[in-house]
Amino acid sequence: MTTIIDVAKQAQVSKSTVSRVISGNGYVSQESRKKVLEAMEALSYSPNLIARNLQSGETKTIGFLAQGFIDPLGIFLESFISIAKRYNYYVTLYFTDGDKKKEIDALNQMKYKQLDGVFILTRANKWEIIEPYSLYGPIATWHRIDSERIYSSYVDHYSGYLRSLNYLYDRGYRSIGHVLGNSENLNTKARIKAIDDFQQDKNIPIKEEWLFHDRARLDNGRNIAHTWHKMANKSDAMAFYTDSVAAGFISELQNLGYSVPEDVAVIGFDNSEISRLMHITTVDYSIKRQAQNSFIYIHNQLNRETIAEQEMSVQLIERKTVPLRKKELDKNASSSENN
Amino acid sequence: MTTIIDVAKQAQVSKSTVSRVISGNGYVSQESRKKVLEAMEALSYSPNLIARNLQSGETKTIGFLAQGFIDPLGIFLESFISIAKRYNYYVTLYFTDGDKKKEIDALNQMKYKQLDGVFILTRANKWEIIEPYSLYGPIATWHRIDSERIYSSYVDHYSGYLRSLNYLYDRGYRSIGHVLGNSENLNTKARIKAIDDFQQDKNIPIKEEWLFHDRARLDNGRNIAHTWHKMANKSDAMAFYTDSVAAGFISELQNLGYSVPEDVAVIGFDNSEISRLMHITTVDYSIKRQAQNSFIYIHNQLNRETIAEQEMSVQLIERKTVPLRKKELDKNASSSENN
Repeated sequence: MTTIIDVAKQAQVSKSTVSRVISGNGYVSQESRKKVLEAMEALSYSPNLIARNLQSGETKTIGFLAQGFIDPLGIFLESFISIAKRYNYYVTLYFTDGDKKKEIDALNQMKYKQLDGVFILTRANKWEIIEPYSLYGPIATWHRIDSERIYSSYVDHYSGYLRSLNYLYDRGYRSIGHVLGNSENLNTKARIKAIDDFQQDKNIPIKEEWLFHDRARLDNGRNIAHTWHKMANKSDAMAFYTDSVAAGFISELQNLGYSVPEDVAVIGFDNSEISRLMHITTVDYSIKRQAQNSFIYIHNQLNRETIAEQEMSVQLIERKTVPLRKKELDKNASSSENN
Repeated sequence: MTTIIDVAKQAQVSKSTVSRVISGNGYVSQESRKKVLEAMEALSYSPNLIARNLQSGETKTIGFLAQGFIDPLGIFLESFISIAKRYNYYVTLYFTDGDKKKEIDALNQMKYKQLDGVFILTRANKWEIIEPYSLYGPIATWHRIDSERIYSSYVDHYSGYLRSLNYLYDRGYRSIGHVLGNSENLNTKARIKAIDDFQQDKNIPIKEEWLFHDRARLDNGRNIAHTWHKMANKSDAMAFYTDSVAAGFISELQNLGYSVPEDVAVIGFDNSEISRLMHITTVDYSIKRQAQNSFIYIHNQLNRETIAEQEMSVQLIERKTVPLRKKELDKNASSSENN
């Protein structure tokens, strides 16, 4: 087998020069570097990365698996890499594009000691396919999953959404449109249950045309604005499953000559950057803490430590898009007795 | 050396069952999977990924290197993975956190045939350290770099920024504040040259207090809003190096009781999603095409094809934050003769 000594001989440089070229640490002249790389090429020499990592037993790198760049990847990822950095871990993001083999390849990186642990934002394989890889390193997700081997930082959307709806009700809104995510998603199912319970509780029948299902995500806020614009019987408030779609809705309504909240109130979800910038009232369901807790779990497993997880909470963030409707409230004084 | 046949024997399953477990393709019962994984563990068997990839000579995966999650990573990444997907390539994002060794590890993945090519958004090592790795696969960046071995999809910010300033001038603005990025950045230097040339051309002296350098990026738009608010001698227009900082500025001014553009005109840069949502007039300097062209270069190198690169252009996107100042224009009628 070719060794670093053979490379040094062939390149006519010292062993430590070869080391510096391989590690990328320390100064090497342009000329020596060229000689070393040519020698490595000529001898087909590959430094054994796996062996290098096995020496320390860890790579200090966490894999982050996602299908693609979809909202709210940004907030989640930013929180995850920021806490990872605090504990001296690196993050490598594998975009699987929903490909099962690609996902397995990434999970296998734990086996080959190229990753210490893995976080799964969106998965391609079934959980029972993924589960056995926890033999090789800790796996965490933010999905709702009932497993002893995969950690979940799941937060139930039911209570958060019910809080939004009750808030709209308390502020005087009675005709509420709902924009929901992918209908196969458990969060969407939780939201539909919240809508049902809310309507039963308040005795307001739901209008089918006020239920929007977002399949595309991208630009969907704009499409919903056009649909709302054309509706004969407009809702006076809209509740969104995610801030970015609410933002697109508001922006496009403004292009169509409407004002928010004068023409329609809007409540978002996520408390993401865009909601702050556009003054959108929203719900903070600890998305950042879900990212942080997932990392903390992986970290604790790897280091046999017990750093405490952060408490999860669902909080309503009042901004400017749901003003109090005094008139409506006076009219319905008898029925508005909600927390 | 342990082979797949040894694993099958130990696990008492067929060779093809072991294959299916390793590849993640096809059905395997929970029980068999467990047996196979235990056998692999007992025999310390690692399927040779590198050998697997060498068969086809490619991994169909491009590495994307970035220091961290900073603006405009989002737009860039989204365009890059979207065109990669169109050509059946995967993307793996290495967050290097500025660590030189980590970056070299990622570049080495080309050598070990784990990556086909690499795109560099933000680098840790000097270009002369990175350059030799182009022996192992194509490397592209959007930075300005003069190299025969690394492709650059660089666009000069000088002309884009000069266009912003002339546009503000033509619309009647004479006291213009400038928010610039990191002063070591070549783009910032190009902008400062544009400011100098503009002021000489229009004969407007620059006020030092109207030059803002953004070092933190995050939340900086807010800080600049507070500074502007406290200024005795306020500029009547603000030109920003990036839309996200312009958005933070506008949002915080609104919190302080100002209106944009009534109190101050704003022009951004990037034509990113946030500028569209908040109706910010901005400059499109083909950031998406920079991402696309970088991918096309890598793709063409790998496949010996010649898919055409997209033409780069700098375009002013008129929205609502730079209204025409009729009065000012009439007053200065003689001096406003710009393209």
